[in-house]
Amino acid sequence: MAMAYELGYDECLTLLSSRRTGRVAVGAPDGPHIVPVNYTVHEGTIYIRTTPYSVLGTYGRNTQVAFEVDQVDDEERVGWSVVARGRCNAVLDPSEIRRINLHAGPQPWAAGHRTLLLALQWRELTGRRLAHDPAELAARP
Amino acid sequence: MAMAYELGYDECLTLLSSRRTGRVAVGAPDGPHIVPVNYTVHEGTIYIRTTPYSVLGTYGRNTQVAFEVDQVDDEERVGWSVVARGRCNAVLDPSEIRRINLHAGPQPWAAGHRTLLLALQWRELTGRRLAHDPAELAARP
Repeated sequence: MAMAYELGYDECLTLLSSRRTGRVAVGAPDGPHIVPVNYTVHEGTIYIRTTPYSVLGTYGRNTQVAFEVDQVDDEERVGWSVVARGRCNAVLDPSEIRRINLHAGPQPWAAGHRTLLLALQWRELTGRRLAHDPAELAARP
Repeated sequence: MAMAYELGYDECLTLLSSRRTGRVAVGAPDGPHIVPVNYTVHEGTIYIRTTPYSVLGTYGRNTQVAFEVDQVDDEERVGWSVVARGRCNAVLDPSEIRRINLHAGPQPWAAGHRTLLLALQWRELTGRRLAHDPAELAARP
């Protein structure tokens, strides 16, 4: 049986910044959606590129969302997850978009025109690590 | 640049059944949450065990939820994701709980008393595969 350990803020930020794919949860009239995305983290913000008429573009702009990233070993039953929650806004100012693209432009994996840039500024960043033994915490990256 | 391909229902079900960890999105008064869980699939239902007073136990019972599972290679930028959406109900009948435990009892990874069994009967099961080339679709499991 694995034990769960709460992660500190700095460790959550390091782990969040170490990955490139996560999932966004948004509310919709017929219930929540989860949308896999790729992303980048820059200056305390998660940036996600999508299309204006996608589920994320429709229900994920200018509203509260949750974002999750994890790394889990199904066989070993160990791993970690980090969740960011806060307001997600569309970035509309062209000079702001250029600035973000230069520094941290998230590249969408799937081909197609992805013209909407979303910025999630979290107000909560929490995480957990699952391990069989506390000693494993030091051994794992 | 990878291409995205919609998966058929049967392939989504096979992939969903191939994993043991996923994420549930639930709505809450202060916005959506995402909760990593382990799960099992049995007779068209996703079973998840949690605690009655957790986020999932509080906001994820007897309501609409979304569930996501994926397998993504951050470096290669290929992978797949499957999303199930539908109503999630608490299983309260003791004989029903015994039956599910016998056949497909999801074992929680983290130690602690997890006494609430949730059953998500999806009404939508959709998925996508990302690959660089259609020929990769045949080569990957």
